[in-house]
Amino acid sequence: MAKELTSRAENYSQWYNDLVVKADLAENSAVRGCMVIKPYGYSIWEKMRDELDRMFKETGHVNAYFPLFIPKSYLSREAEHVEGFAKECAVVTHSRLKMADDGSQLIADPASKLEEELIVRPTSETIIWSTYKNWIQSYRDLPILCNQWANVVRWEMRTRLFLRTAEFLWQEGHTAHATREEAEEEARRMLHVYGDFAENFMAMPVIRGVKSENERFAGALDTYTIEAMMQDGKALQAGTSHFLGQNFAKAFDVTFVNKENKPEYVWATSWGVSTRLMGALIMTHSDDNGLVLPPKLAPDQVVIVPIYKNEEQRAQLAEKAEQIMAELKALGIRVKFDNNDTKKPGWKFAEYELKGVPVRLAMGMRDLENGTIEIARRDTLTKETREMQGLGLYIKDLLDEIQANMLAKAKAARDSRIYEVDSYDEFKARIEDGGFFLCHWDGTSETEERIKEETKATIRCVPLEGDKTPGKCMVTGKPSAQRVIIAKAY
Amino acid sequence: MAKELTSRAENYSQWYNDLVVKADLAENSAVRGCMVIKPYGYSIWEKMRDELDRMFKETGHVNAYFPLFIPKSYLSREAEHVEGFAKECAVVTHSRLKMADDGSQLIADPASKLEEELIVRPTSETIIWSTYKNWIQSYRDLPILCNQWANVVRWEMRTRLFLRTAEFLWQEGHTAHATREEAEEEARRMLHVYGDFAENFMAMPVIRGVKSENERFAGALDTYTIEAMMQDGKALQAGTSHFLGQNFAKAFDVTFVNKENKPEYVWATSWGVSTRLMGALIMTHSDDNGLVLPPKLAPDQVVIVPIYKNEEQRAQLAEKAEQIMAELKALGIRVKFDNNDTKKPGWKFAEYELKGVPVRLAMGMRDLENGTIEIARRDTLTKETREMQGLGLYIKDLLDEIQANMLAKAKAARDSRIYEVDSYDEFKARIEDGGFFLCHWDGTSETEERIKEETKATIRCVPLEGDKTPGKCMVTGKPSAQRVIIAKAY
Repeated sequence: MAKELTSRAENYSQWYNDLVVKADLAENSAVRGCMVIKPYGYSIWEKMRDELDRMFKETGHVNAYFPLFIPKSYLSREAEHVEGFAKECAVVTHSRLKMADDGSQLIADPASKLEEELIVRPTSETIIWSTYKNWIQSYRDLPILCNQWANVVRWEMRTRLFLRTAEFLWQEGHTAHATREEAEEEARRMLHVYGDFAENFMAMPVIRGVKSENERFAGALDTYTIEAMMQDGKALQAGTSHFLGQNFAKAFDVTFVNKENKPEYVWATSWGVSTRLMGALIMTHSDDNGLVLPPKLAPDQVVIVPIYKNEEQRAQLAEKAEQIMAELKALGIRVKFDNNDTKKPGWKFAEYELKGVPVRLAMGMRDLENGTIEIARRDTLTKETREMQGLGLYIKDLLDEIQANMLAKAKAARDSRIYEVDSYDEFKARIEDGGFFLCHWDGTSETEERIKEETKATIRCVPLEGDKTPGKCMVTGKPSAQRVIIAKAY
Repeated sequence: MAKELTSRAENYSQWYNDLVVKADLAENSAVRGCMVIKPYGYSIWEKMRDELDRMFKETGHVNAYFPLFIPKSYLSREAEHVEGFAKECAVVTHSRLKMADDGSQLIADPASKLEEELIVRPTSETIIWSTYKNWIQSYRDLPILCNQWANVVRWEMRTRLFLRTAEFLWQEGHTAHATREEAEEEARRMLHVYGDFAENFMAMPVIRGVKSENERFAGALDTYTIEAMMQDGKALQAGTSHFLGQNFAKAFDVTFVNKENKPEYVWATSWGVSTRLMGALIMTHSDDNGLVLPPKLAPDQVVIVPIYKNEEQRAQLAEKAEQIMAELKALGIRVKFDNNDTKKPGWKFAEYELKGVPVRLAMGMRDLENGTIEIARRDTLTKETREMQGLGLYIKDLLDEIQANMLAKAKAARDSRIYEVDSYDEFKARIEDGGFFLCHWDGTSETEERIKEETKATIRCVPLEGDKTPGKCMVTGKPSAQRVIIAKAY
């Protein structure tokens, strides 16, 4: 099975597509650009969702649900917002199908044409702020800290499973605040929640930064981002948090009476991560044998494969496996016992490598006699035989070690491809090979656009941490406040 | 606050609407027929969803996600199915907005007209079976036991919060089997999962039965249902499970090679419950003071309200409350301490009654001196003062008792309104007052339609349990296999 995977060296893009499909994560559907998330892929997404949901709740947020549809006129209220989304949206125009007069096919019934078209939400700022208008009168009603788990639709022209699909699943937080400072603090807080999630759960190092004006969310005053580096050296924007100022409050006339009894527009943030994180997870860690999952997000953290020659041996091994299962489960470890008799151990080994299960335990009759077991790590592809005694705690530590090792490995790989470059010629010569380029930039859109046109690379962010030394723009020689990250991106 | 609620006696329907809005469960949105589920309402739905999800997983099901959109031609493949859904669906016809030539407004860009219209899923049988075609070759690929949590859209003309909305949240299970028997068993299994959930978590007694042909799901051979009685004596269909035979397999040409190496069409089921359950929950238990929540689904099971005169007292009570919180939390009880200084205790009492919190603890300085606390039950509206000693276990038992009492009370109320009636005249005279009527019916659609036309009551189901004695149809006098449940319904 694993051998059917295109290797990364041969064709990185094809490797990714192969892996997503063969590891049963997702597949293309009959509907253009929409994917089917298969059970195994969905179970990983569920783990991500549950952890994020817990982190949101721990930071005081609550979940709610807002309509799928947005009246066309709402989208137009915020000028930049509509500019950003009108060109790729699903427009609902009718509410009924009927048989055509010639009986040949169903058609949208002209009599059911809607007075105002509805847009399938590409994001929910407009419908939510039209709702908040009724929820907010006084500073006592603030802050509102809502999140929603939902599907959204953006009619992308070129789609790729998880990375860019017409429909995707995501969460979108929408908060309302009494002061600018509080809203800005919230936007940064959620950036760090995303960053911490990426690093502590996905084992994916990210650079936390702020977007240039060109790359901001449509309607935001500031967009914070976490940027990860994929194995091919390209950047992937993994999550964004927006300080929206009073733009949406003004568009929907949402004011509150402040402590001084004066009316004021409400301050806003929004922030989201999506099933795109699945793509980031896959491309950060996986190898030519398949998926490599960090233990904290693996649906099965351990799989036990018995090796036997007959039913009697199978029964004896099953008994032992049940004991191990009980021991591991008592320690909170997610473990699966694959006692399927229609597949050979070798097939199972390849299958669980493809599926990225962090630890594989194999045992045969000799192990049973010796009180030993074979332990294989997915992240390093190493094996060892160890005594059965104390296995549970050993595995528990091993899972922690794998989690830490995956982050360290990804971080080392990334850091080895972050370059400080001061010459635009050198930049142009090297950008094709991938990597993050720390360069001085004069802060203008003109220069940013020139870089993009000439190299297809974009300013990923102005990092919040790190070297803040001023310098000279590598393109124009004009003054630069600090180095920014430039890279080609997904 | 509570006094603003219309009483049930005055206007049951208005009482329901008032309660949903005033208890912060949901509200109408700017989009016709679509609701906003507010944080408190959503937190109850989350509890339901989590319990159901656990029950589905315990019965071997996995979650997946299928596209929001269904190509128009797919809907047409199963004749009854399209008949059932074509008349009320959201039709997507364009993929872009653009500014009208006169600059006055955005319009659906004619150049973006889709080749084939897409329907926002009203249910997903068609898109899922078009996918299953690729997943199923052999009997070894079966069964497939998928569930999806999703939003769906049915363009209902008359909508009511939770009970009937254009968009609603639900889960839909879609399973594929090698034999008819296995599929029928699955459909019944899920009926019982729903029934057990309704009774054990919602404290809502239900009658489990099978629908008449007229009331079947569009495309099903058999529809199983759980029917609950609301306080006004009307029936509410709370969940359905369908045995679909080979209808969708035939429509999408999904065959498998059986153990005898012969091709055969796959057998199917589907089953779903939705946010409609929120309406059922509200209308089963709530009273003129507000919501009454069963402890197992209450976001807060216990609320502690301190009664003080000054900051010193407030601090002393807060200290004690923290101890109680710790004790209750250690027992797995969800407890909230409302130490808000801007609201009076009386306001808080009314508020938590409105919100349906099962147990309210109140304590003042005298309680602190005496080592006592006041305990108020939401279900019975009774109060007692009890010693603080052993409070945790007492509350734990009390929550169990409340859960059991709510089911018993709802069951007694329902059972007192189930009538055996053998005369159609008597039936017609009494049906206006509500209740479930156990009547003999000749099994024909003609008779069923006549009853519906003349009384607006429908055959809710043929109960699976209970009296199976044959008799004579109350309308036609023709033979009847057993009594069926007839009622007016939501």
